[in-house]
Amino acid sequence: MLTIGPLVAGAVTAEPGDMNVLWIFAHPEGRSLNAALRDEGLKALDEFGHSYRVSDLYAMKWNPVVDYGDFEHDPAERMLVASASQEAYESGRLPADIRAEQEKLDWADAIVVQFPMWWYGLPAILKGWFDRVFVKGLGYGIADEDGTVLRYGDGKLTGKRAMVVTTIGARPSSIGPRGVHGELNDLLFPLHHGTFWYTGIAPLPPFAVLSADRLDEAGFDAAVAGLRDRLRTLESAEPIPFRHQNRGDYDEDLVLRADLAPGRSDLAVHLRD
Amino acid sequence: MLTIGPLVAGAVTAEPGDMNVLWIFAHPEGRSLNAALRDEGLKALDEFGHSYRVSDLYAMKWNPVVDYGDFEHDPAERMLVASASQEAYESGRLPADIRAEQEKLDWADAIVVQFPMWWYGLPAILKGWFDRVFVKGLGYGIADEDGTVLRYGDGKLTGKRAMVVTTIGARPSSIGPRGVHGELNDLLFPLHHGTFWYTGIAPLPPFAVLSADRLDEAGFDAAVAGLRDRLRTLESAEPIPFRHQNRGDYDEDLVLRADLAPGRSDLAVHLRD
Repeated sequence: MLTIGPLVAGAVTAEPGDMNVLWIFAHPEGRSLNAALRDEGLKALDEFGHSYRVSDLYAMKWNPVVDYGDFEHDPAERMLVASASQEAYESGRLPADIRAEQEKLDWADAIVVQFPMWWYGLPAILKGWFDRVFVKGLGYGIADEDGTVLRYGDGKLTGKRAMVVTTIGARPSSIGPRGVHGELNDLLFPLHHGTFWYTGIAPLPPFAVLSADRLDEAGFDAAVAGLRDRLRTLESAEPIPFRHQNRGDYDEDLVLRADLAPGRSDLAVHLRD
Repeated sequence: MLTIGPLVAGAVTAEPGDMNVLWIFAHPEGRSLNAALRDEGLKALDEFGHSYRVSDLYAMKWNPVVDYGDFEHDPAERMLVASASQEAYESGRLPADIRAEQEKLDWADAIVVQFPMWWYGLPAILKGWFDRVFVKGLGYGIADEDGTVLRYGDGKLTGKRAMVVTTIGARPSSIGPRGVHGELNDLLFPLHHGTFWYTGIAPLPPFAVLSADRLDEAGFDAAVAGLRDRLRTLESAEPIPFRHQNRGDYDEDLVLRADLAPGRSDLAVHLRD
């Protein structure tokens, strides 16, 4: 087991090198840049002493479509997706493929979510991993004894961390601040904030390989080195500092207090100062 | 045919009431709020004299997963998704289900994209409509004779318009400016700007039914009235005023010129003043 430096009390929840990592992979091609990066990433996790499991969604022929079959729901009755999913989850009647992913998620301290960016979002097969696995009662619809809704920082998945690894055809300038495509963190806000953070998972800054369709040998080596660096600090890196819903930053209407990030309404207002 | 008022020269490309509308619907339940809104919407289109076709993705058992099968690609050879999709598209070898959607898209002057918002994005079945239908050569990878890349306003789909119709559990304040979920137009930026506008389609402001899981009869009636109003102006409404990539607002690195929206880097910098 490699250790990376002295443990700072309270800064991390486990000793370096003993995390359980779930690597979710969503690319159809086993000989792709993405697959090569995944293989290098898994090798690095091994070197750093972590355990890992892989959900290779294409290889698993993952079904991404939420439907009646997920909830043993009688098609003769109207289905409300939220409550149907919660009933099936709480009574242990979700299908085996969803339960297997929830079991991996339960096991994991950290999740790596790797995909090529398609239309500035997740490939459908990956979006449907979240749609089907993060059912009500696990991902949302959680409250404490007082009825306070637990989300955005507090949830059943609090304590876990997640990191996006993505490949994008765009060059760095065009997906940076004021770039024509929109800035990467803004594009990923629905995943980072609306999905991970919503459920309690702390999102780390994403690792993106840009100009990915024009990468030469040196570019690939740099990408591998960068990915290794990010995986080396998977346990200790500071997450994106999103605000908690329930720590006084938002008012009763769930609007950010006027004295915080005053006068602004961009997505970055949801970052702590 | 109902006409809505005098035609302003140049403001619209067709007479009111003679548009072809493709309505893409992505909800598993035929007795849902979404389905009821769709039925009211289609009735309104009819009343207003438009023609429509519906792609009911669940009813069609739409396959949302991009894979080898789409491109008659030999699995023994490495597949590059972009070029494989372009070759299959240009040689007419895409599968029948994709070609059928492309044919509807070609027929349509306007597209309505209706879905319940799941994890602050599209249900997987709908994301995969874009992933599979907007292949290279149709949705991206377009250039003029001089080699200028045509996207963000200019593309093969220029002249069409699109409108999102969505249901969201969140209450209005919480998904408005500074709301905890992020503002709706920012959440939809990857679809509005990164998908529609990228391909040349002009996106209209979205129509969203909020607090959708707590809607009473009066709320439903208000939602129908609101949807009818928006469909009444489907042809004449001002699109979201995104900037064109190729009209001088972005520099050679595809970064917004420093004198436009100076000092800002939120997503709204991509709106014309």
